[in-house]
Amino acid sequence: MLGAITFTELYAAVSQFYGRQVKLLDTGRFEEYADTYTADGEFQHTPGVPPARTRAGIVAELKRFNSRFDGDPVQRRHLFTMLDVEELPDGTVAANYYALVLTTRPGVKEPVVGPHCVVNDILVWQDGRLFNRSRRVDHDQLFGAAAPA
Amino acid sequence: MLGAITFTELYAAVSQFYGRQVKLLDTGRFEEYADTYTADGEFQHTPGVPPARTRAGIVAELKRFNSRFDGDPVQRRHLFTMLDVEELPDGTVAANYYALVLTTRPGVKEPVVGPHCVVNDILVWQDGRLFNRSRRVDHDQLFGAAAPA
Amino acid sequence: MLGAITFTELYAAVSQFYGRQVKLLDTGRFEEYADTYTADGEFQHTPGVPPARTRAGIVAELKRFNSRFDGDPVQRRHLFTMLDVEELPDGTVAANYYALVLTTRPGVKEPVVGPHCVVNDILVWQDGRLFNRSRRVDHDQLFGAAAPA
Repeated sequence: MLGAITFTELYAAVSQFYGRQVKLLDTGRFEEYADTYTADGEFQHTPGVPPARTRAGIVAELKRFNSRFDGDPVQRRHLFTMLDVEELPDGTVAANYYALVLTTRPGVKEPVVGPHCVVNDILVWQDGRLFNRSRRVDHDQLFGAAAPA
Repeated sequence: MLGAITFTELYAAVSQFYGRQVKLLDTGRFEEYADTYTADGEFQHTPGVPPARTRAGIVAELKRFNSRFDGDPVQRRHLFTMLDVEELPDGTVAANYYALVLTTRPGVKEPVVGPHCVVNDILVWQDGRLFNRSRRVDHDQLFGAAAPA
Repeated sequence: MLGAITFTELYAAVSQFYGRQVKLLDTGRFEEYADTYTADGEFQHTPGVPPARTRAGIVAELKRFNSRFDGDPVQRRHLFTMLDVEELPDGTVAANYYALVLTTRPGVKEPVVGPHCVVNDILVWQDGRLFNRSRRVDHDQLFGAAAPA
């Protein structure tokens, strides 16, 4: 895709990509969320846990992660801000942004706020659409900590 | 407007539209806020309350809603994120996004956080400007609840 | 730059500018942050404190401000939303937006939320890049208060 679109077009395309992708995650449509990754996509969202790989692996990891809410229904939300987009020389796209997690319980207007994270994605174009090749999520509350072994 | 502008132009135009509109709401300029709706605009922001209709109706509803803060001065803010924009076949624009409400009281740095909402708007072009034809706000704390009768 | 780029290009450029600039601030790279200002840039972020001027002055002010966290390590974040961009007749760019401050302490997932602010920037183009000529930050918890003398 390199050279085919302008930075402005790329910035809007990435913004729109996240505007859709996050709602798949936040409404528990994990298969559709995983389909926004490449077939060999990597998803690392929990400190100290190795990345999930492939769409099936991403779905399995999301089910594992969200099992903590079994019997404790919540509406989770991920709010992305401060998007920095850069097209890399190989034509992939590096996206760096903030992500704030909110967790709302039934009947409670005030969500639990946090954690706040910084996300580094590599996006790629396939057949004119963006896909996540990889995602790495760093958590603010771990700042200064040694990287987990 | 269909066909006249690109997706990229639309995405920026909608973002800018909200960047202005929300400040009219948050500074209590309800007449100016209502003027960002079409003459027959619909505004539904409270669960179980029927939509307000027409600009005069929207102003009246906002005054009614905000009377809860009479004698309790607050600075309300609505933070929109995760914008998903789609031009529909009839030339109208569907916008879906998150909205986080913050309520700050005088001298208190930490706002009350929440509710978090998901908003569905239909926007239309009139004389080269965007207007809200309708807005429906769903509240996260009501997830899983039956729709109000 | 007036006339050379479209509104859509400007909106993306400003969004990207902030997507990078804020991370310099939030990771304590104050010299690099100050370099995003013009040589005569003004930065006013604390109510009642006169603006810092020049890049060296901005660095000094940020060091002074952040000394409150000496011995109390925190990860601060500034989340900008609701960006309103306007090119002014003199070719400078007025940007008005919301900024939510989050402060995370080690090992604590939930950040301290607040203050929420409204920011007014004047940006200018120099050698094809955007720079901050001035920033003024107004705090929500001071609404209704008389401007500090």
